[in-house]
Amino acid sequence: MIILGIDPGYGTVGYGVIRKEGDKNTAVDYGVITTPKEENLAKRLVRVGKGIEALMIQFHPDAVAVEELFFAKNVTTGIQVAHARGVILVEAQRHCPELFEYTPMQIKQALTGYGGADKRQIQQMVKTFLNLPAVPRPDDAADALAVALCHSQTNALARLFRI
Amino acid sequence: MIILGIDPGYGTVGYGVIRKEGDKNTAVDYGVITTPKEENLAKRLVRVGKGIEALMIQFHPDAVAVEELFFAKNVTTGIQVAHARGVILVEAQRHCPELFEYTPMQIKQALTGYGGADKRQIQQMVKTFLNLPAVPRPDDAADALAVALCHSQTNALARLFRI
Repeated sequence: MIILGIDPGYGTVGYGVIRKEGDKNTAVDYGVITTPKEENLAKRLVRVGKGIEALMIQFHPDAVAVEELFFAKNVTTGIQVAHARGVILVEAQRHCPELFEYTPMQIKQALTGYGGADKRQIQQMVKTFLNLPAVPRPDDAADALAVALCHSQTNALARLFRI
Repeated sequence: MIILGIDPGYGTVGYGVIRKEGDKNTAVDYGVITTPKEENLAKRLVRVGKGIEALMIQFHPDAVAVEELFFAKNVTTGIQVAHARGVILVEAQRHCPELFEYTPMQIKQALTGYGGADKRQIQQMVKTFLNLPAVPRPDDAADALAVALCHSQTNALARLFRI
């Protein structure tokens, strides 16, 4: 089973593709889609949409997991990220009916068993779970792999308990 | 010149198409795209995208004007509207490079000369400017026509003063 995890953004979108076989998860690919600061929001959003579409076509994920937004810091930035997240959801939904959303808290809980885990702890768990030689870079790619792993864990539990 | 005005939303998107010839504006079409409450956000966003695409193909607008978001009431609703607005901007930008954004204040100012005008005053001005027998319904369609008229007025002024 191929899972695509996405960390939404309009300047940088993180993505992480993992293969789940039984209890084992391996990293297939990860990275970021970036958009130029000089362009207006609409043009950057078009690039985000095309980038997600390209990932869907390249990896044919069986499930897509997208992080929910968390607005503690900056509402203006949050609104722009929400614009991008809408575009991401549409491109994902168009190519894959199995679309899931997880809050930052759910992702932390799934990877460390603790909803208050910090970024560094999450990244270490991503490295460990995927048996990688180092923490994946950049941060947005590591975050996206964490979203994919969260779905892998949550989905396994749901099947175990027949939720 | 054909102008498409859009009042963004995820449950209801208002649209208004006007033809501008010299100083005269006429209504070509107006209405709403609606999405079913029973569906999840991603599926509703796909419908919004398809609806905007259909309008772009049907009317081939020379310019698209989209209302900016205003968050006074409910941040949660605002976030979902921002998701939809991202999808709207992408579909508009894909089909028409002439994409403009106006704040509620700019729209009020353009139609009534007064940024504090209320909804009813705006709707009356839409009826008057477009020489319609009654105020267009539903409200979201009237709002969208107001956005299109705002672009028509603003654009005319910009040309007059060679801004």
